[in-house]
Amino acid sequence: MRLGVCYYPEHWSSDMWSDDAARMKALGIERVRIGEFAWSRIEPEPGVYQWAWLDQAIDVLGSAGLKVVMCTPTATPPKWLIDQHPDILAVGADGRPRAFGSRRHYDFSSPSYFEASRRICEAVARRYGSHPAVAFWQTDNEYGCHHTVVSYSPAAAKRFRGWLAKRYGTIDALNNAWGTVFWSMEYRSFDEIDPPVATVTEAHPSHRLDYRRFASDELVRFNRMQTDILREHSPGRPVAHNFMQLFTEFDHYKVAADLDIAAWDSYPLGALEEQWFAPDIKARYLRTGHPDFASFNHDVYRGMSKQPFWVMEQQPGPVNWAQWNPAPLPGMVRLWSWEAFAHGAGCVSYFRWRQAPFAQEQMHAGLNTPDNRLDLGGEEAARVAEEIRAVVSADGEPKVRAKVALVYDYEAKWLFEIHPQAADFHYPRFAFEYYSALRSLGLDVDVIPADASFDGYSMIVVPPLPVVPDDFGARLGASGAQVVFGPRTGSKTRDLRIPANLPPGALADVLPLRVWRVDSMRPNVTVPVTSDSAALKGESRHWRDLLEVPANMDVLARFDDGHPAFVRHGALHYCASLFDDALTQRIFARVAAAAHLDAAPLADTIRVSQRGALKYVFNYGDTAYTIDNVRADAFVIGSSSVEPQGVAVYRAA
Amino acid sequence: MRLGVCYYPEHWSSDMWSDDAARMKALGIERVRIGEFAWSRIEPEPGVYQWAWLDQAIDVLGSAGLKVVMCTPTATPPKWLIDQHPDILAVGADGRPRAFGSRRHYDFSSPSYFEASRRICEAVARRYGSHPAVAFWQTDNEYGCHHTVVSYSPAAAKRFRGWLAKRYGTIDALNNAWGTVFWSMEYRSFDEIDPPVATVTEAHPSHRLDYRRFASDELVRFNRMQTDILREHSPGRPVAHNFMQLFTEFDHYKVAADLDIAAWDSYPLGALEEQWFAPDIKARYLRTGHPDFASFNHDVYRGMSKQPFWVMEQQPGPVNWAQWNPAPLPGMVRLWSWEAFAHGAGCVSYFRWRQAPFAQEQMHAGLNTPDNRLDLGGEEAARVAEEIRAVVSADGEPKVRAKVALVYDYEAKWLFEIHPQAADFHYPRFAFEYYSALRSLGLDVDVIPADASFDGYSMIVVPPLPVVPDDFGARLGASGAQVVFGPRTGSKTRDLRIPANLPPGALADVLPLRVWRVDSMRPNVTVPVTSDSAALKGESRHWRDLLEVPANMDVLARFDDGHPAFVRHGALHYCASLFDDALTQRIFARVAAAAHLDAAPLADTIRVSQRGALKYVFNYGDTAYTIDNVRADAFVIGSSSVEPQGVAVYRAA
Amino acid sequence: MRLGVCYYPEHWSSDMWSDDAARMKALGIERVRIGEFAWSRIEPEPGVYQWAWLDQAIDVLGSAGLKVVMCTPTATPPKWLIDQHPDILAVGADGRPRAFGSRRHYDFSSPSYFEASRRICEAVARRYGSHPAVAFWQTDNEYGCHHTVVSYSPAAAKRFRGWLAKRYGTIDALNNAWGTVFWSMEYRSFDEIDPPVATVTEAHPSHRLDYRRFASDELVRFNRMQTDILREHSPGRPVAHNFMQLFTEFDHYKVAADLDIAAWDSYPLGALEEQWFAPDIKARYLRTGHPDFASFNHDVYRGMSKQPFWVMEQQPGPVNWAQWNPAPLPGMVRLWSWEAFAHGAGCVSYFRWRQAPFAQEQMHAGLNTPDNRLDLGGEEAARVAEEIRAVVSADGEPKVRAKVALVYDYEAKWLFEIHPQAADFHYPRFAFEYYSALRSLGLDVDVIPADASFDGYSMIVVPPLPVVPDDFGARLGASGAQVVFGPRTGSKTRDLRIPANLPPGALADVLPLRVWRVDSMRPNVTVPVTSDSAALKGESRHWRDLLEVPANMDVLARFDDGHPAFVRHGALHYCASLFDDALTQRIFARVAAAAHLDAAPLADTIRVSQRGALKYVFNYGDTAYTIDNVRADAFVIGSSSVEPQGVAVYRAA
Repeated sequence: MRLGVCYYPEHWSSDMWSDDAARMKALGIERVRIGEFAWSRIEPEPGVYQWAWLDQAIDVLGSAGLKVVMCTPTATPPKWLIDQHPDILAVGADGRPRAFGSRRHYDFSSPSYFEASRRICEAVARRYGSHPAVAFWQTDNEYGCHHTVVSYSPAAAKRFRGWLAKRYGTIDALNNAWGTVFWSMEYRSFDEIDPPVATVTEAHPSHRLDYRRFASDELVRFNRMQTDILREHSPGRPVAHNFMQLFTEFDHYKVAADLDIAAWDSYPLGALEEQWFAPDIKARYLRTGHPDFASFNHDVYRGMSKQPFWVMEQQPGPVNWAQWNPAPLPGMVRLWSWEAFAHGAGCVSYFRWRQAPFAQEQMHAGLNTPDNRLDLGGEEAARVAEEIRAVVSADGEPKVRAKVALVYDYEAKWLFEIHPQAADFHYPRFAFEYYSALRSLGLDVDVIPADASFDGYSMIVVPPLPVVPDDFGARLGASGAQVVFGPRTGSKTRDLRIPANLPPGALADVLPLRVWRVDSMRPNVTVPVTSDSAALKGESRHWRDLLEVPANMDVLARFDDGHPAFVRHGALHYCASLFDDALTQRIFARVAAAAHLDAAPLADTIRVSQRGALKYVFNYGDTAYTIDNVRADAFVIGSSSVEPQGVAVYRAA
Repeated sequence: MRLGVCYYPEHWSSDMWSDDAARMKALGIERVRIGEFAWSRIEPEPGVYQWAWLDQAIDVLGSAGLKVVMCTPTATPPKWLIDQHPDILAVGADGRPRAFGSRRHYDFSSPSYFEASRRICEAVARRYGSHPAVAFWQTDNEYGCHHTVVSYSPAAAKRFRGWLAKRYGTIDALNNAWGTVFWSMEYRSFDEIDPPVATVTEAHPSHRLDYRRFASDELVRFNRMQTDILREHSPGRPVAHNFMQLFTEFDHYKVAADLDIAAWDSYPLGALEEQWFAPDIKARYLRTGHPDFASFNHDVYRGMSKQPFWVMEQQPGPVNWAQWNPAPLPGMVRLWSWEAFAHGAGCVSYFRWRQAPFAQEQMHAGLNTPDNRLDLGGEEAARVAEEIRAVVSADGEPKVRAKVALVYDYEAKWLFEIHPQAADFHYPRFAFEYYSALRSLGLDVDVIPADASFDGYSMIVVPPLPVVPDDFGARLGASGAQVVFGPRTGSKTRDLRIPANLPPGALADVLPLRVWRVDSMRPNVTVPVTSDSAALKGESRHWRDLLEVPANMDVLARFDDGHPAFVRHGALHYCASLFDDALTQRIFARVAAAAHLDAAPLADTIRVSQRGALKYVFNYGDTAYTIDNVRADAFVIGSSSVEPQGVAVYRAA
Repeated sequence: MRLGVCYYPEHWSSDMWSDDAARMKALGIERVRIGEFAWSRIEPEPGVYQWAWLDQAIDVLGSAGLKVVMCTPTATPPKWLIDQHPDILAVGADGRPRAFGSRRHYDFSSPSYFEASRRICEAVARRYGSHPAVAFWQTDNEYGCHHTVVSYSPAAAKRFRGWLAKRYGTIDALNNAWGTVFWSMEYRSFDEIDPPVATVTEAHPSHRLDYRRFASDELVRFNRMQTDILREHSPGRPVAHNFMQLFTEFDHYKVAADLDIAAWDSYPLGALEEQWFAPDIKARYLRTGHPDFASFNHDVYRGMSKQPFWVMEQQPGPVNWAQWNPAPLPGMVRLWSWEAFAHGAGCVSYFRWRQAPFAQEQMHAGLNTPDNRLDLGGEEAARVAEEIRAVVSADGEPKVRAKVALVYDYEAKWLFEIHPQAADFHYPRFAFEYYSALRSLGLDVDVIPADASFDGYSMIVVPPLPVVPDDFGARLGASGAQVVFGPRTGSKTRDLRIPANLPPGALADVLPLRVWRVDSMRPNVTVPVTSDSAALKGESRHWRDLLEVPANMDVLARFDDGHPAFVRHGALHYCASLFDDALTQRIFARVAAAAHLDAAPLADTIRVSQRGALKYVFNYGDTAYTIDNVRADAFVIGSSSVEPQGVAVYRAA
């Protein structure tokens, strides 16, 4: 459990660096990330490198006892490079190149940029690969930010054709897989295939899904080029990338497979404002963020990180990039920091040391104000640094082990976006709502991919997962866990077709359903769910699978027109719809009970986590919360009365 | 009264064809539409035709006793043709060609495509023009779908100039007609005129209206090329096109004039979701469709069809293309089928035989599920097939004859779209609301163009018709019918100018009004309507014509600021506004009474129709409806108690 | 106090001109504006001028005793000119040239157009510069209409680089000022800088603000070219331009500095519909306009006009260009006219003499209907003409002198648009709301720029003004006035950076605050404001500055979390938020009382103004209003009972 900070020596006079480093250290900060946007200072003219300032900055930080997280600067190629190679610019769906003047103005498929990136990465890696202060690396910055994964450039089109040829072998195989006979879309060769854009009406969904897979793979290849260089020139230093939950246009699992540390950038207030939440929820959690949003992402990235995951950028105050940017309540920067550690973080690094008084992000708070006074977030970070010692001395830094797993998938998002059948069928939202229901029962959750091992889990929840691995049902059946599936699970083949046996496709081997019809519902429509059990009554929203079920399957709840709504087959449960939050919670509580898990509803602003022997309690609400039945001397942080925005940590009985 | 189905032999293994044909026949299906998207299979390489599979498919269908509706495949030119002639692609208002990869990716003005279409039509027509199983033809598919009528290509610009030269003769005539002196928009020659697009603010409305007329005429010309070829090579076989109400960017009357059968594609649930209806209406009729929507279109296409109109595609279950795609209630497929016949349909053809498991429309239901089991829609179709025999034996297949006519116009829609003066002045909506008011009174309605004969009608309703034919007033006056005009009737000349005598322009000869001012009202504003007659009180919405009326005109209702709201001059009635639904219904009831028609309000989910000696009753609601005063032995289908989603047919007294 | 009218002789047969002129004169009209869209008639072919018709038109008007306002016709270059020089067309943010076919289709930076404009202006100015009937000039027409200030053309890009070079001298100075080191956006030369458009995410805000300044300066230069020509060829005739409040993409002060008369075009109903007002406000003032909207603009343009300002175009009835276009209530055309005079107008000129029956604006009312009968607006104009005599004879035409000033700025609008930090931070709205609060207290207001003299004002209100002149605080302090600042005042430097001492930057010298954090709030969030004074309780909306205040500063109200909401330091008051309307009114009443001004809340539909010795009362409501304590013989117009839409003018005691 360490604290870090993001720092931009190039933004400040070198006169300030020593003082900055000393104050960081005094505050309890141990890691400093630098350099991710510094290309124009490292190489101000083509081929002319200026290392002196950066050498000095790293030396100053290292001398202060800080460890540097060095970045490759490829997120912001300088203007001279763009002017040399205009093909670096990605092309939007509107057919226009995306211009220089902000960031991420590059195309993952551009050969010029691939080479230029290789060159600058090698230069930086060679220079600092064995510098004693450089202890970690970060590749690029926030892949996918500003919708920069998919490009419609000629370079992308060309590489897509090669990708298709590799995937399908022959054009006949592609035509068969996609079903291009529909609407005379048949191709005679891979060379005839264009990116699926600017069509009269929707382009072919299999074509679109493959284009999204291709774009994701291009990013993976780009990142791997960088990790290979870094490992060659800086052996032994962990390599990280800072993901963001919001940027799901590529497969985070595949990128993480090439990293040592999956880090993410946590902006609870900006995320609340920009995501799917309803206006009343946005107002309610305006200054705290949603109680489950950061947690969800901690669990996502913990799952894919080889070493303990990091929060590479932690919101320290108001930000600048959401439509509205409220100030967090006092205490929230501390709460968010502890929440990350409770979920297993190895490091929480604040963005940024000092607010910059210029450019696009001048309204983004730092730990210090632009006039270099310690801001509220800085004070809270200092408190966290102190508290870390108490916690680590009480229990060390054990791994988080959850009994519940939630299966989370990136292709599912692309697929439902491309082929929704219901305009508001938003995969991350539904996955998050399942996660939130589990958390509202006090359960710790691992978030895992569909091809993960299921060993050790008592309960596995599968939000709508259209494409399931072939052995998914068999492995789930063998796991011994209680399993809950959301609707539309198994509804598509890998080629984005309807399975020959209808949904749930391959799952039907273990869960002998047949979804003979689907029913998509606009937002102002719900269907009542009825049951003999009062706990299973509620409302159905968004979607219904109409099920044909065998006589030996338990129909636990039905829609009011008689179709099965919630069924059980041994340990496997299937939700034929997305239910209201309360019904989802009761269903999960029922399944958790079957799994012999201790699950009970929490107040909706209280969340709990367990890491090792310690239990963490977080209060997102506006009234104090009392923890019952814990002895006063068990508390490592706080006490049994948890103030609003407060944190308590105690030894679990 | 026949049933048909849309079938895609190219989507399935030829092994399945015989069984499919046999099962169609057994179900009661008699016509099978094929081939409209099969170009890439008919001509997989340039100039290389592969007839064998299609020969076989047609033979299989014919051998089973089915009659084939053969289509020209021009809605989906294959990729190789686009690559040969990129100018085939239409150009959007954004200046970009609309790419290959879905359908309707062609420009009606492209000379390359006109020639390529002629070639493939001739090839198909020669091959099957005299095949014994081929009994009908369909040209292309759903002209206008996906906003594909208007193109801004160089080819269209060039042909537009020729169209203008033909219409106006001299550039001075055009300048005078349009009034280009306004804003210095004068042209010195036709060559100076571009398509009206990408202008700084709105382009000249007369220019825009002529461009829309031109685009519609281009489509008419394209279709006529096809009907000429089909009539040459397949004499005696009726030629149809499958229109869709939603696609009103061209003049359906002009296309229908070149056809034998005006068919349309009826998707009551998709249409409800995608059209102007308010969210509460969309929720209320979620699984039935609006009670008047399909009927309105039956009456539209009956009016323009030389032979009995067809429903070429009938929704058989949930579809895929609306924002939300609910499942119809059980019984609705049957109800919709009977409603079509009640309105005079010659054939109801379901789309499609079997749901395809691939490509864009894989979520579109068929009569059979993708795993080839008979779906609910298939069961209901079988029931309809049986019931047809009873109905035909009771009364044959008489023509529908209505006493009430509603005047419906396509240019009116374009004109109000181009030049609305009130952002939500939506012509099809207002025409539909007038139609719906008539239907809610139990009246059968013919939908006719403004230049139709008015003989035999007792009552004629004219929704807002901006441009009236010169002799419109005289013919209406001579008809002897009671007439109701909506506001803005006669408000424009053919060149989209204000008439010299102000609105209602030429109509003032018979209806001596002067609309001296207009008043457009935002959606949250209404104006009360007052009258000595309680039945004529209500609310005015959207729009007001402020009328100067002669002393001898009856002012039957006034707005609360004293301006006339509803006036009568002999048999001619003028509504100076769009009234609330209930007031519109009461006004129409009053006029119907003056026309000696039997009109009485129905429950809002009950609709009735008469065809020949039989009366049809449809229940769109959720409670049973009782038909009074009909003897039990008069019923041909059903009984005096009509269940929800039920149909009854009885001999009218 | 004169009446005028806009007239288009080229739209009508020359047979009608004499009658038109005679009827204008008889109605009481004295000025006639002509020619602003007549280029295609003046120069129908390149270099071929046709003066005869225009000579005749001017002669007819002059002979009738009317004075002509002659316009330069540069708002509508003809098609032949565009075809000769396609680079005249401005380029949109989408990269496409904006096509011919409406108006304002030109780029202020196009060298071709600058020269063509110079040529036509000289031709017109030479021809009519000394014509006895031509008494005034208007340059172009409604600069900025349809978002035509900013262009992204190559010509604009080239001139922008020159503009930057002039502003910054060296590229290093620019890099430092903007802070381009952020995100590696550093430039090596001015030639590398492109317009800030089409970037992946937001372009650099300083870059964007400079581009807006540049675009405004280009317009100023274009207008100055015209005023120079007019003054050379028509010395002694005042030169005007007709601004519109809605078009704030350029600095109206800078253009006005080159004019003699700042005129504006007043469309109270269209503006209400198209601006920020909430739907219920739009419905409430549907047929009157907002009681403060026209007044605000009268005061804006009075402040920048060397001679008495004009209303060059006054709405005479319904217009055509808003989404909905309601008819004004009878009496409103008169009320609006008198309101303009009450605020100091020298002339109110109606748009237009007669409604045109063709082209884009055919639904725009005139003083006469298209069939040439006097319309309601014409009748009201005649009444105003008569009343003017009584008013002028009672008091002459004195200047308006206000004790209250409101500081209004154009760059502020651009800056907050570019860099809002809160999506709905709409500068003109907030400035208007401050103005409205002052007016609701019966106060007359001067609207002035930030660099104006503050002499003679008792109270100065500063809506959120991000960039303050260096001497702003000192001058305000020296003025002796009571001052109220809105939030975010002084929050940015001229280069769009955060001031080194944090906001309020330079103002802190006189107002020693420190805004250490800001808090932006979504529309469904408010924060209570508490105070010991009941009058200072209310709600905070949109935004909060969190203030650090010295001990000697009065904190008059606080937010409910304790932060200061409203503070006073001597005569300087600072609002840390935007308050609800009622609280703003009470704050301004309190400050007005401190300034010894007579301020009391009016009914919300009553407004009063003083010009010289006369007091004007306007009733926007729907019930009569009684003026107390004024003797009957003091009334010059009306009486103490002011009917709805009524006007009263009386000698102030």
